[in-house]
Amino acid sequence: MTFKPTDYLPYDFANRRHIGPSPAEMDEMLDVVGADSLEALIDDTLPPKIRQAAPLDFGKPLSERELLHRMKVTASKNEVLVSLIGQGYHGTVTPPAIQRNILENPAWYTAYTPYQPEISQGRLEALLNFQTMVSDLTGLEIANASLLDEATACAEAMTMAQRVSKSKLKAFFVDESCHPQNISVMKTRAAPLGIEVIVGAPDTLDPGSVFGAIFQYPGTHGHLRDFTDEMSALHEHKAIGIVAADPMALCLLKEPGAMGADIAVGSTQRFGVPIGYGGPHAAYMATKQAYARNMPGRIVGVSIDSHGNRAYRLALQTREQHIRREKATSNVCTAQALLAVMAGFYAVFHGPEGLKAIAQRIHRKTVRLAEGLAEAGFDVAPKSFFDTITVEVGGRQSAILQAAVDEGINLRRVADGRIGITLDERTRPATIQAVWRAFGIDRRDDDYTPRYRLPESLVRSSAYLTHPVFHMNRAETEMMRYMRRLSDRDLALDRAMIPLGSCTMKLNSAAEMMPVTWDEFSLLHPYAPREQAAGYTEMIDDLSAKLCDVTGYDAISMQPNSGAQGEYAGLLTIAGHHRARGEGHRNICLIPMSAHGTNPASAQMVGWKVVPIKSAANGDIDLDDFRAKAEQYADTLAASMITYPSTHGVFEETVIEVCRITHEHGGQVYIDGANMNAMVGLSRPGDLGGDVSHLNLHKTFCIPHGGGGPGMGPIGVKSHLVEHLPGDPATGEGAVSAAPFGSPSLLPISWAYCLMMGGEGLTQATRVAILNANYIARRLDGAYDVLYKGPSGRVAHECIIDTRPFADSAGVTVDDIAKRLVDCGFHAPTMSWPVAGTLMIEPTESETKAELDRFCDAMLAIRAEIADIEEGRADREANPLKNAPHTMEDLVRDWDRPYSRETGCFPPGAFRVDKYWPPVNRVDNAWGDRNLTCTCPPMEAYKDAAE
Amino acid sequence: MTFKPTDYLPYDFANRRHIGPSPAEMDEMLDVVGADSLEALIDDTLPPKIRQAAPLDFGKPLSERELLHRMKVTASKNEVLVSLIGQGYHGTVTPPAIQRNILENPAWYTAYTPYQPEISQGRLEALLNFQTMVSDLTGLEIANASLLDEATACAEAMTMAQRVSKSKLKAFFVDESCHPQNISVMKTRAAPLGIEVIVGAPDTLDPGSVFGAIFQYPGTHGHLRDFTDEMSALHEHKAIGIVAADPMALCLLKEPGAMGADIAVGSTQRFGVPIGYGGPHAAYMATKQAYARNMPGRIVGVSIDSHGNRAYRLALQTREQHIRREKATSNVCTAQALLAVMAGFYAVFHGPEGLKAIAQRIHRKTVRLAEGLAEAGFDVAPKSFFDTITVEVGGRQSAILQAAVDEGINLRRVADGRIGITLDERTRPATIQAVWRAFGIDRRDDDYTPRYRLPESLVRSSAYLTHPVFHMNRAETEMMRYMRRLSDRDLALDRAMIPLGSCTMKLNSAAEMMPVTWDEFSLLHPYAPREQAAGYTEMIDDLSAKLCDVTGYDAISMQPNSGAQGEYAGLLTIAGHHRARGEGHRNICLIPMSAHGTNPASAQMVGWKVVPIKSAANGDIDLDDFRAKAEQYADTLAASMITYPSTHGVFEETVIEVCRITHEHGGQVYIDGANMNAMVGLSRPGDLGGDVSHLNLHKTFCIPHGGGGPGMGPIGVKSHLVEHLPGDPATGEGAVSAAPFGSPSLLPISWAYCLMMGGEGLTQATRVAILNANYIARRLDGAYDVLYKGPSGRVAHECIIDTRPFADSAGVTVDDIAKRLVDCGFHAPTMSWPVAGTLMIEPTESETKAELDRFCDAMLAIRAEIADIEEGRADREANPLKNAPHTMEDLVRDWDRPYSRETGCFPPGAFRVDKYWPPVNRVDNAWGDRNLTCTCPPMEAYKDAAE
Repeated sequence: MTFKPTDYLPYDFANRRHIGPSPAEMDEMLDVVGADSLEALIDDTLPPKIRQAAPLDFGKPLSERELLHRMKVTASKNEVLVSLIGQGYHGTVTPPAIQRNILENPAWYTAYTPYQPEISQGRLEALLNFQTMVSDLTGLEIANASLLDEATACAEAMTMAQRVSKSKLKAFFVDESCHPQNISVMKTRAAPLGIEVIVGAPDTLDPGSVFGAIFQYPGTHGHLRDFTDEMSALHEHKAIGIVAADPMALCLLKEPGAMGADIAVGSTQRFGVPIGYGGPHAAYMATKQAYARNMPGRIVGVSIDSHGNRAYRLALQTREQHIRREKATSNVCTAQALLAVMAGFYAVFHGPEGLKAIAQRIHRKTVRLAEGLAEAGFDVAPKSFFDTITVEVGGRQSAILQAAVDEGINLRRVADGRIGITLDERTRPATIQAVWRAFGIDRRDDDYTPRYRLPESLVRSSAYLTHPVFHMNRAETEMMRYMRRLSDRDLALDRAMIPLGSCTMKLNSAAEMMPVTWDEFSLLHPYAPREQAAGYTEMIDDLSAKLCDVTGYDAISMQPNSGAQGEYAGLLTIAGHHRARGEGHRNICLIPMSAHGTNPASAQMVGWKVVPIKSAANGDIDLDDFRAKAEQYADTLAASMITYPSTHGVFEETVIEVCRITHEHGGQVYIDGANMNAMVGLSRPGDLGGDVSHLNLHKTFCIPHGGGGPGMGPIGVKSHLVEHLPGDPATGEGAVSAAPFGSPSLLPISWAYCLMMGGEGLTQATRVAILNANYIARRLDGAYDVLYKGPSGRVAHECIIDTRPFADSAGVTVDDIAKRLVDCGFHAPTMSWPVAGTLMIEPTESETKAELDRFCDAMLAIRAEIADIEEGRADREANPLKNAPHTMEDLVRDWDRPYSRETGCFPPGAFRVDKYWPPVNRVDNAWGDRNLTCTCPPMEAYKDAAE
Repeated sequence: MTFKPTDYLPYDFANRRHIGPSPAEMDEMLDVVGADSLEALIDDTLPPKIRQAAPLDFGKPLSERELLHRMKVTASKNEVLVSLIGQGYHGTVTPPAIQRNILENPAWYTAYTPYQPEISQGRLEALLNFQTMVSDLTGLEIANASLLDEATACAEAMTMAQRVSKSKLKAFFVDESCHPQNISVMKTRAAPLGIEVIVGAPDTLDPGSVFGAIFQYPGTHGHLRDFTDEMSALHEHKAIGIVAADPMALCLLKEPGAMGADIAVGSTQRFGVPIGYGGPHAAYMATKQAYARNMPGRIVGVSIDSHGNRAYRLALQTREQHIRREKATSNVCTAQALLAVMAGFYAVFHGPEGLKAIAQRIHRKTVRLAEGLAEAGFDVAPKSFFDTITVEVGGRQSAILQAAVDEGINLRRVADGRIGITLDERTRPATIQAVWRAFGIDRRDDDYTPRYRLPESLVRSSAYLTHPVFHMNRAETEMMRYMRRLSDRDLALDRAMIPLGSCTMKLNSAAEMMPVTWDEFSLLHPYAPREQAAGYTEMIDDLSAKLCDVTGYDAISMQPNSGAQGEYAGLLTIAGHHRARGEGHRNICLIPMSAHGTNPASAQMVGWKVVPIKSAANGDIDLDDFRAKAEQYADTLAASMITYPSTHGVFEETVIEVCRITHEHGGQVYIDGANMNAMVGLSRPGDLGGDVSHLNLHKTFCIPHGGGGPGMGPIGVKSHLVEHLPGDPATGEGAVSAAPFGSPSLLPISWAYCLMMGGEGLTQATRVAILNANYIARRLDGAYDVLYKGPSGRVAHECIIDTRPFADSAGVTVDDIAKRLVDCGFHAPTMSWPVAGTLMIEPTESETKAELDRFCDAMLAIRAEIADIEEGRADREANPLKNAPHTMEDLVRDWDRPYSRETGCFPPGAFRVDKYWPPVNRVDNAWGDRNLTCTCPPMEAYKDAAE
């Protein structure tokens, strides 16, 4: 009997597993959509002239097991040495309970940014813990919920200082003891804004000549200095003082707030987040309450819900976020939420006593190391230090560094024949002995009385982490349950579709996630000798080549840490190109009105002027207006920034023309890659005429959203721009991130996705993303107006439905619908963007027909509820929409509503047994902003709220 | 300034993390308990003469990070080769989503056995999926929820055959093609029961001379045979036919049911459960509906709840489980629940098409391998096969085996110069080429048309896995959500204390769990050359040494797979000892009335007669009765079996006397180690006079309960018994488990616990376990009668409270209280054991004071509710106790009860926002047993139930 293998594609292949609808379901959906085949639907949707010529070909897709094998082979090429390089990156011990229950738990990592507070109370509490920790450790009143990395936090602090100082001065002082990457990124940021960066020793500060100054604490070579005098001097001249501080050092040392600092920034990486060859980690920023509204990034705050119960939500969102078109001062819109959550839990787990004990252990080990070196005759600086020392070795530098590598240890090469050593939580006695051996010292541990080598005046006297959450019982049982309880309060992808237009909330598969926590990826230092990172290099090179294939570009820079940062880096690249051609005066950026707010913000960050382009009635770019503006600014046109497919979810036919016009007038084309999930395998921005694009790896390429970060926004460029890509932060100019490759420990996820899907699988994912969106559009059509279809009546990978008519007809707002969807067990689609009063729905390819139907059923039922109001069957106020979301407390209470409990709590779509209950009723945002509280409220406050 | 290190013990040390109450809380609790210090409490509780002389000393305890480092060093000593040995153990691919979301997820692994169905619906559904899968694949009507391993399943099938055949014959036929370990374990089991095991080729079967027969399918060397004729012949003589079948082979091959088999057994290991050097995996047993009540092990069945809604629960529990004192036929009381859940999900993930594709791929690769060998001139048998072939190599055997090892591959050494090769899901083309190279064949892959090498008559024609659950959409998104939904329906340790007396539900820490899924532990084959398992050997040796220290024994056997199996193995050891001394006639076993039911069952399994010993009024062993019985049976006394501290939770002073009397009369002493959590570091069974004990590593030594297994029940023995410990299942006689070390991939958990706690930490855990129990006893005293205190008024590590008076006073049963505790967010304590109408509460050391208080508050509130009935303030029927547990559906429905929704659903103890809702109301056990359904009901049935 001849073997007839089944043609069934087993589960372990990603293009079976990643794509939601089964082949049979797709057939049913095509019927509904009215297309003969998937290919026919795509032909309807994508204009022929934008289709790519050749199919993507990445070879045979790997099964899950083949992937993990391949990944292990690559990972093994990384050499995991003990890195005592410091420079802002430190060995740390991730508590296994945090690794398992947060970092490896889809309930945490698949969550979206907590814009819908009623279904995000768990991570909002976790982030509030983080903010409270930062506020306490820095001694400043208010902190945000994290920034991308310490270097960008420094740059943000610099521009914030300029804002709040209201100074006319253009100079900013930078302590020469700042980490080199911090200096590099601040310089990059300063140049286009016309800020002059003065790098010098603190003693050379002329406080009257600057709008602000930043100091590193401890300094990059270990020095400790009290900046109180500098702060006073700055304040006398109405300038702003910033301290970049290591939060671990602050467990023992006088806090920036006590020195009078206005702003503190730093990295919380060493609070339990693996180094990961540079990222992701959560940077922090803290400041005085008075400057709260000027602080970039997301801030979690305390408010109340419609019953007056305490509830958390993002505060001051009307700042959202200084990304106002006209007056952008920052384009930050991503946090490092997952990493901030981890760092916050690290503090909850250890508590103040535990953190102090860890800091003491680190210091004690450093004292021991230093004494051993000094007793052997080495010149060790500084006299006082926390965890970092610098040793004079003169001509022996290379030999000692190599001897250390032979011992499995990386030390830091410092100019002038010095070597830097920074110890950390992971340092063991054997490590110290090995360092001694590298210095030629044969020394064993002895009993000795360690002494503080901290300056007496800098020993911290104030308490920190006094809130009860940091004094929970330290039993792992209790910690595990606390993490579980918080995660249960949130609705993430592990329970329901999150149909957020433009956010591409797709599957983050377990196989893709596994390598992230492998030691071979997570323990590497970003400034370790590059040859130790051969595995990373191989992965980055191969992923870059694949992304070039996908986009039609010639090179990729992995450095940008978020989409917005990718925009900024891409525009910098264009600016560099113009400068190199002697056309540095070009400073006009054409941006359609419908663009994401980060586009104009990024343009202004590179010093350009934004010229808005009108939209036609159908949402497309108004080509006449575009042509007119391009001609008007022909001499100064720097670039045009467009999104493709458009933010209205349509493949505009005119894109090629837009690019052509731009080039004709001397400009470069930036194509925003936010909607790349509608293009992969079908169309390439590089072919359309784009010169640069960023890719949101956390959208299209499966990096999970982590409850509001991490993200990755690498940029692809045409060959003529390659030389202007961001530089190496440690050594070069023009860096945009602290680490050369941004957040490289996330890259295994995107690489795994490409390897498991293969070219055809990726293309099929795009097709199905378009099918899923068209299926929803068709099912909702009639009940809702679907805006902005293409000429053939198709939408791209998302669709916009209009809810504006209901305001008049029923008094129902888009917010009411969003909150009612919570009752149905869904995260709302994107609200009021790009058009106010609309919902933008993006299902992605990962959702099954059953889940799409559950969503459509819910939306149709909501429409029926609206009709009940319109037609007088329901009250305009006392209706399920206005009272949404309903909580368990509503059920327990006396029910005085004109509709039933059943109607209120179990609308179509809602699971019964598996019902998701929001922990709070509708949150009052305005109350919270009027009564701003951004740290954990005291326990009594909770009690009051409950009463 | 001299360094003053804080004396604060950081979180990363286990004796901080593992022990629930903080030092400050312990002080408060000691106040309540009325003890001056923890040491004073222990002195009150443990009689001086049973205290151990020297403290436990395991050196410096390791931090989490040190532990993981140490564990990695040991793990690296295991060599991970590709094992193509087969013999019942196969490479398999665990879907990463299952690994992450089940095996590494505390919501699944910390759950208890689903005795309380209302809070176990998730895992009950998962186990029902497993049963349905087994039933379908084997073609038999009913299946249980797993057994310990295939070899013990064979032995259980043998004794079950004897029961159901009702034959007077004592002979049992065993196919010589059975795996050697299956034969070994059956022989071990048969001997004491007087069963004669006849091993032979199927052709030699004399069906009239046996009560049953077992055949392996495929045979251990790959042969395929249709056993239909044998089954018919057996049935003609009213004998029972058993097939031990590989479920993967059944995806292509005619099923045992179609052959007429009465019972099928086998291992589901290759359904996604790593080999793990031998275990744990889930064995299965399926049989005809008519024999359901004779089947050992747990069976999940379908029933209804008090509202008539469909609900799952353990069926036929009145069998619980043939462990009836008088007529025990099996002592099975552990399943491999977590592994059965994994195997069931593997089938759900892949579905019938996927499983068939996997089986085809395996077969195709085997055909290719065989053809390559045959074409090179090797004699390959059999002609038809599924995945296993045997090759004649004569004198080249050792050379080829070594050449294979040099290629990184283990093959099977078969007698008479043959080599066995079994392929699996992990086999890659490169592996096949490497095997060829080991045989001296230089061959590459060619295009060729593979042929079926299955006998036409054995190709499966029937459908399987037809239930909709196996036809879910295969998108990982959907699978992830299904796993999440099921886990959310259950209440496990990650949400609340599970205060189960005698079950020791303590913390299973994340650090302990991590190494379990490392390749170095999970990929080893149990019959790989022992030198490849040097890491396992090191771990087993060190853990054994530590357990000897803890128990006062001289040697440990890790082979028993559960506590009950440990008892059985221990008694076999004693029996061997008597036989060796020429006293094989000794067959009387003295067992107190209060003993766990497994004790007499185990005694009967070794062919002994049980003589029960009375309990005194205080629950202690009646020493006079004991002495009298020992004297009465002095000539035939084999052993006494006692539990220490007693099942009443008291350290009996008389234990030493009991041991002395036993020895005086020629018996050996078995001390049941179920309550070892009250002894570690304080008292050693070996010192008290015990000759053997088993240890429940899944109780005292932190292996999680997994929702009803896995477990490990190693035994410790005094030196004179060492030579009688269980033999090697692959090579020797007297094995009790399929694998030499039982379920060794669990051992890293217990070893990690010992290494991180250190001797003092382990001892402190014992002290705090006793403190926690005494704290609860004191808080509940007065409201409830606390039975069985020791002379000083103390309890050991658990306490028993009496609920019998409430039956008369309020019509409230122990069941009502247990279900009401669900409303309070708790798993009930152990019910009606060892005394009917009581609750046995064991908090363990891992629970914090806050959680103990939450529990006590709930219990006191329940007592107040009982008082309300007693005193006429509440109705005897319409009260919260009788209606418990309350569901969300109760809240939505019209509320016609005399108490409020608030009272019903939020009694003291219940969380509000984080409230756990049982998915069903009280389950009707009797209904389900009357209407026995043990496979997934059709979807319409769900619909009917809902209506």
